[in-house]
Amino acid sequence: MSSLKDLFSPRGIAVVGASKDPTKIGHLILKNVVEYGYGGKIYPVNPAADEVLGLKAYPAVSTISGGVDVVVVSVPSAKVLDVVDDAGKAGAKHLVVIAAGFKEVGNVELENELVRRARKHGMRVLGPNIFGYVYTPVKLNATFGPRDVIPGNVAFITQSGALGIALMGSTILEGIGISALVSVGNKADIDDADLLEFFDEDPNTSVVLIYMEGVNDGRRFVNVASRISMKKPVVVIKSGRTEAGARAAASHTGSLAGNVALYETAFRQSGVLSVKSVEEAFDFVKTLSWNPLPSGERVVVITNGGGAGVQASDTLADDGLYLEKPPQDFVEEVKKIVPPFASLANPVDLTGMASEDWYYKSVKTALENREIDAVLVLYCHTALTSPMGVARAIHRAVGEAGARKPISVAIIGGLEAYEAIRYLTNLKVPAYPTPERAAHAIAAQIRYRRYREYLLKRILPGG
Amino acid sequence: MSSLKDLFSPRGIAVVGASKDPTKIGHLILKNVVEYGYGGKIYPVNPAADEVLGLKAYPAVSTISGGVDVVVVSVPSAKVLDVVDDAGKAGAKHLVVIAAGFKEVGNVELENELVRRARKHGMRVLGPNIFGYVYTPVKLNATFGPRDVIPGNVAFITQSGALGIALMGSTILEGIGISALVSVGNKADIDDADLLEFFDEDPNTSVVLIYMEGVNDGRRFVNVASRISMKKPVVVIKSGRTEAGARAAASHTGSLAGNVALYETAFRQSGVLSVKSVEEAFDFVKTLSWNPLPSGERVVVITNGGGAGVQASDTLADDGLYLEKPPQDFVEEVKKIVPPFASLANPVDLTGMASEDWYYKSVKTALENREIDAVLVLYCHTALTSPMGVARAIHRAVGEAGARKPISVAIIGGLEAYEAIRYLTNLKVPAYPTPERAAHAIAAQIRYRRYREYLLKRILPGG
Repeated sequence: MSSLKDLFSPRGIAVVGASKDPTKIGHLILKNVVEYGYGGKIYPVNPAADEVLGLKAYPAVSTISGGVDVVVVSVPSAKVLDVVDDAGKAGAKHLVVIAAGFKEVGNVELENELVRRARKHGMRVLGPNIFGYVYTPVKLNATFGPRDVIPGNVAFITQSGALGIALMGSTILEGIGISALVSVGNKADIDDADLLEFFDEDPNTSVVLIYMEGVNDGRRFVNVASRISMKKPVVVIKSGRTEAGARAAASHTGSLAGNVALYETAFRQSGVLSVKSVEEAFDFVKTLSWNPLPSGERVVVITNGGGAGVQASDTLADDGLYLEKPPQDFVEEVKKIVPPFASLANPVDLTGMASEDWYYKSVKTALENREIDAVLVLYCHTALTSPMGVARAIHRAVGEAGARKPISVAIIGGLEAYEAIRYLTNLKVPAYPTPERAAHAIAAQIRYRRYREYLLKRILPGG
Repeated sequence: MSSLKDLFSPRGIAVVGASKDPTKIGHLILKNVVEYGYGGKIYPVNPAADEVLGLKAYPAVSTISGGVDVVVVSVPSAKVLDVVDDAGKAGAKHLVVIAAGFKEVGNVELENELVRRARKHGMRVLGPNIFGYVYTPVKLNATFGPRDVIPGNVAFITQSGALGIALMGSTILEGIGISALVSVGNKADIDDADLLEFFDEDPNTSVVLIYMEGVNDGRRFVNVASRISMKKPVVVIKSGRTEAGARAAASHTGSLAGNVALYETAFRQSGVLSVKSVEEAFDFVKTLSWNPLPSGERVVVITNGGGAGVQASDTLADDGLYLEKPPQDFVEEVKKIVPPFASLANPVDLTGMASEDWYYKSVKTALENREIDAVLVLYCHTALTSPMGVARAIHRAVGEAGARKPISVAIIGGLEAYEAIRYLTNLKVPAYPTPERAAHAIAAQIRYRRYREYLLKRILPGG
């Protein structure tokens, strides 16, 4: 197990700068730690208070008796070094440095000194310039972001603060379950590669999502990312992909967004799914974390609207995925329910007359057919059916099918369609408002499958 | 004025096949016509009924006395030709043929005969194989889609039925106001070019959105599209862009999706904004229809999160738009409100400390600066502010600014962010859940501006 084990499952956590003032960051972090239900020891550190949020407060970390594995440091940058020494004396293992005012504003020396001193005490540093971290298996939310993140199997690493906090909120809205959420900020010490090593072995994590502006050690990232990608997909939003973006990144975190082509090559070599937008990343995370891995590339598209089918075919083709004729036994089954003029090539068009039952039957039959590896279901809200009825039919088919297979659903329409999408995503069935997004998200699973096969062949003798 | 004037503003409209059975399409269409508030004469035609929905019913169109300009034909394909002759006798000008069962199922001869007979009577045909049409300036909703489409300035032409109806619902959810919505189906007679000619001169339409699988007369489309594009932007979702997609389109409508490169060239020549996805199209329509045209390309990005700014910069660069240093007087104004470490290059980073008031002031200042042509506002939901508060601040700035300029807003976060987006879009301020979508949508306006300048130069002597 990686050396980050104690960071994610500390016996005790101290919050330095745990103010009684509810607008202060130290207060907000302590509140999240308490209210999200962390089971270990919690120690507010505040020389000016006897208690904070009902917990006994300590004047310094070194005055706490009991194992403090993690010290969250929420004091101004000028006071951080004192806390480092104090935490070191107390035998802490990890410093989580919230404070800004380091490398990102040109204060390189202070940042180097922070790491040097922490190392001297045998401590590792997360941050500085971060909003904290979350690890849901132990109910630890040590951030000043939203409290009620949904427990799940996605680990999210973010180099950006404000965007990271906002996206933390998005995960809740989108129903994406989180194992860990780590703000890495300036990455003075702990970086993406360290975290990937931990998540590689973490049984609670199945997918990793990274918002990255740059990495310090590209070679190490490629090594570690290649390793984990053989087991778990890694999705990367590489910000500063363009020269203009890289310039913006430089003026923002002082981070070197670096040569665009170099990153692209590195991602390809390491089997990482690189995406351009936040939306794409979240869309991918849904199929990757809720669906099983596909056993092949044979996707069947089921639709009630030809146009939606064409749009999906275009998107799949853009993603290098070509639809083949569906297996004959599947076609025969569908023929029994649809009108004779229905086109049963791929996309399989149930026609605008499609009922909820037709969706149920065709989706279940597809999921159970051995020659079909993944199912893309498209539904256009028409006068004949209700989106919620179709969503329920699809969910029933998924639940009753004798096999678990990747599925992705588009429900196109107005408010009722929106509600049906929420219904399905709450049940962990990936659902989207447009055919293109549903198609692109299922294609991500095939893309990951290809990367993984390539990586496995590369390392296996005779592979 | 084009010959389609009577289609969109008929004195009277007859619905043939106006059943009393509320599940029948003829009934649904009549109901929409009545309930959406059409002010002209409405005539149900049904030989088996005396009245339908409280309106006197007629046994045939030719028994109606009074001007019937439009006849909606909602009977099976085998009976359509009889209606054509009957309507022709009655002096109708337009047939709106809902029925399927023509070219799309190989019945080419029936379709040709339909048009031949209609022409003989001096009538034009919309369809067949369609769900009807809408023209909100006269409160006419003659579709079996959703009733309460929002009146506005966007004309939407769709070749797809089920997808078109579903997207009709999406316009309502997204707050997109519609001038016209036309299902063109098989385009046996009236096609995209005819409609573009009408919308070119239609004072109620400012933007045209087309879902297209193929056109019959490419040269004419380019001519007409080039003409209207000098005045109004045309956004096209070209379905069947790829070989696989084209194959799917062929099996769906029998439409020849045709050579992909040819379409791309045609779109470029005619100044059409070609998009790949339904989402992109709707995103574009918001900026294009709610914002004024930009007078130049100088975009300023205002953000409270560096990461969001970098993502927006990347997207703008992908769209060929490069951010320049903001004007000095603008920078001086912003300096008065932000902390000294804020980066005031472009993106202008208000920092995570940004308050609602900072947003108000900086957005207003930007909108009023003569050297700024468009403003992209990004907001990450953090602990300090509420999305609704920031949305209100932005709306106030837009309302109070001395100049109208294109604006696009991203509000990133959870449920509160979603609600703030709805709040802004209801007020016709384009707002999106991610920085990339907001950036891409404002870039569409610049792209249109370039196309338009190119078209104008091409036709103007000495231009």
